Amino acid sequence: MKPPRAALVCVGSELLAGQVNTHQAWLSVRLARAGFEVVGEESVVDDVARIAAAMRRALAAADAVIVCGGLGPTFDDVTREAAARALKRGLSFKPELWKTILARFARYRLPVPEENKRQALVVGGAEVLDNPNGSAPGQRLRARGRSLVLLPGPPGEMYPMFEAVLPRLARAHARGVHIAAVSVRLSGVPESVADERLAPVRARWPGARFTILAGSAEVSFHATAAAASAAAARAARARLRRDILGAVGEFAHAEGDATLESALGARLKARRLTLAVAESCTGGLIGGRITSVPGSSRYFLGGVISYADSVKTRRLGVPKKLLAAHGAVSRECAAAMARGARRAIGADVGLAVTGVAGPDGGTKEKPVGLVYIAVSGPGPREKVKRLEYNGSRESVRARAATSALRLAFDAAGR
Amino acid sequence: MKPPRAALVCVGSELLAGQVNTHQAWLSVRLARAGFEVVGEESVVDDVARIAAAMRRALAAADAVIVCGGLGPTFDDVTREAAARALKRGLSFKPELWKTILARFARYRLPVPEENKRQALVVGGAEVLDNPNGSAPGQRLRARGRSLVLLPGPPGEMYPMFEAVLPRLARAHARGVHIAAVSVRLSGVPESVADERLAPVRARWPGARFTILAGSAEVSFHATAAAASAAAARAARARLRRDILGAVGEFAHAEGDATLESALGARLKARRLTLAVAESCTGGLIGGRITSVPGSSRYFLGGVISYADSVKTRRLGVPKKLLAAHGAVSRECAAAMARGARRAIGADVGLAVTGVAGPDGGTKEKPVGLVYIAVSGPGPREKVKRLEYNGSRESVRARAATSALRLAFDAAGR
Repeated sequence: MKPPRAALVCVGSELLAGQVNTHQAWLSVRLARAGFEVVGEESVVDDVARIAAAMRRALAAADAVIVCGGLGPTFDDVTREAAARALKRGLSFKPELWKTILARFARYRLPVPEENKRQALVVGGAEVLDNPNGSAPGQRLRARGRSLVLLPGPPGEMYPMFEAVLPRLARAHARGVHIAAVSVRLSGVPESVADERLAPVRARWPGARFTILAGSAEVSFHATAAAASAAAARAARARLRRDILGAVGEFAHAEGDATLESALGARLKARRLTLAVAESCTGGLIGGRITSVPGSSRYFLGGVISYADSVKTRRLGVPKKLLAAHGAVSRECAAAMARGARRAIGADVGLAVTGVAGPDGGTKEKPVGLVYIAVSGPGPREKVKRLEYNGSRESVRARAATSALRLAFDAAGR
Repeated sequence: MKPPRAALVCVGSELLAGQVNTHQAWLSVRLARAGFEVVGEESVVDDVARIAAAMRRALAAADAVIVCGGLGPTFDDVTREAAARALKRGLSFKPELWKTILARFARYRLPVPEENKRQALVVGGAEVLDNPNGSAPGQRLRARGRSLVLLPGPPGEMYPMFEAVLPRLARAHARGVHIAAVSVRLSGVPESVADERLAPVRARWPGARFTILAGSAEVSFHATAAAASAAAARAARARLRRDILGAVGEFAHAEGDATLESALGARLKARRLTLAVAESCTGGLIGGRITSVPGSSRYFLGGVISYADSVKTRRLGVPKKLLAAHGAVSRECAAAMARGARRAIGADVGLAVTGVAGPDGGTKEKPVGLVYIAVSGPGPREKVKRLEYNGSRESVRARAATSALRLAFDAAGR
């Protein structure tokens, strides 16, 4: 079965002036999981002719085209006009849509700028897509069996609108194809090792599609297989999942979209454990990631950023003698920091990181990229790990943080 | 004078499978600063025909086309083949290039995989671009007065190679146009206010191009103007810079690429001040950003992540009575945390944040998005600020961190 194809058009001059395009990655993962093959993406400046040309190219290459951005009320929002031109259709003003927009403004007691009327313009034949979080409605157009979907640019508006329309796009273009999708997130394993372990799974599933993506010491693995019925897809999913977890299950910290920090949080919550951190070379990155999870105050108490040695001795109780004998970047110091964090903060588990992030400060014995991570607790348990990373300061720090989170995840699961 | 146009082609199936494309933003800013108008970007999967088609489209639209990725040694690295096809030229094996690649592997005492020979294939008429940080050389091709530049995908390799070739692209395509470029980074000001203040500058410079980009409570403003000689460009740059700083100078923390955290670091270093943090709702984000700067150990000592109230009282000495009377999210608590961090860590300046990041935990008096930031020192000085943000947990936290860094920047400059 050939999978339906999707293409992306990202509209906005800011995307060609320094703003990072995050829609592309976000949409690609979700389209793939719904069974689409994403064949390309174009970013275009706010120009009717250029946007229309990009839409025509995308419609020639794909069954479903997702266009993001350019649906606002101002003069440079011209995606509606571009879609009308690309499909050679007219634009018409919809009074009932304008009423909805007015009602929305009234709810927030905001004055309605006259230019917002442009948001009630609809391309001929379009189905209007509701936008619960903003004033710009979306539009879905059909042309010669293909779909052109217009969505607003702000993620808070675009994400839920896309999630709402995706199942219908899949039904329209996958035509009887049911998708078995498995996403597994791994940590504590290099991409190459994960890849090797998964090779037999790939061989066993010749018709499936696989993607392996490496982040900062995290690897995510996505697999999709097509089936002829919903029941067959469910069965295939169970088998595919079993095969994948059989190969790399020991490294998996989550399935689906869950992050390592939320998986750690779920474990701590389930076991009613509290956590404290002691961060040297990561300087707060670990605490920052742990507290990115809503509700993390239920298990995370806080910690000490012990960047200077004086903070390690005074605030974490690392003995001066220990520092003199082994140095701040050592197995011994990491363990003492983890114990110190636990004691100073009054937590069940203490997690510590110390290392040489670079670019300077490396020596022959302790090169840039050398990192020790340690966990103390729950109970009398303790574990220290030595890691060596290549790469930039940023990459060393990010990978050290991930490895530490993984160490805590393992400790909380024992 | 019409600016030369540039277009980007980003090669790699991973870009259409969930990997975030950061090259697009990085390249766009630098091309604009060199005087190019960036008219579009395409991301394409690893497929010769699709890459070649994207190259042809880009060459039709722009004077200079930058292609990133697909120059590795493996079977799916087909950018060389695609360029040969797009320009209807041959590929030839260059023994001298192969020798350079072999020498590189020898330096690292690595065995040379046979498939690496593909990296010594060069498109007819190409100038080889040296890659000091990897085995994949780049190539620059000329066709009908236009440039097609092939660069490897890894940022550590691509960035310096692009910086090396950019001045030559500007000379080739800007033909006697000299560019005056000014980049200013602002914080502590909403984008709309910065935009309004800069409107008269835009009006005064009708021929210049302006871009305003908003990040997490940071705004960056880029301006370029074309001049007919190097001397005229220097003079225009001085005038443009004076106009821009006249309009928004009080909000500027840096020019060029410097971040707020590195600008803060430079001030602290110059005044020989040390810094400590106390983070509640940001959970470590501020420490993480401060320590992202190489050499930050010269002025950053560390801090306390006081997520739980018990940590605020026990580790920062915030009086229990104060917490009972005003709550953890209060002007009083923020000030006490800043003083506490300074004292506990032994620093000249203490910086604190406390707030309601959401999505839960808000009340009528203290809604989600309410944040207090405080700085204590140097000397007897103290300042507390109340902020109210809309948006997601992530956005509230990121903006709180930026505003706190800006507060410390101002304190260190007085």
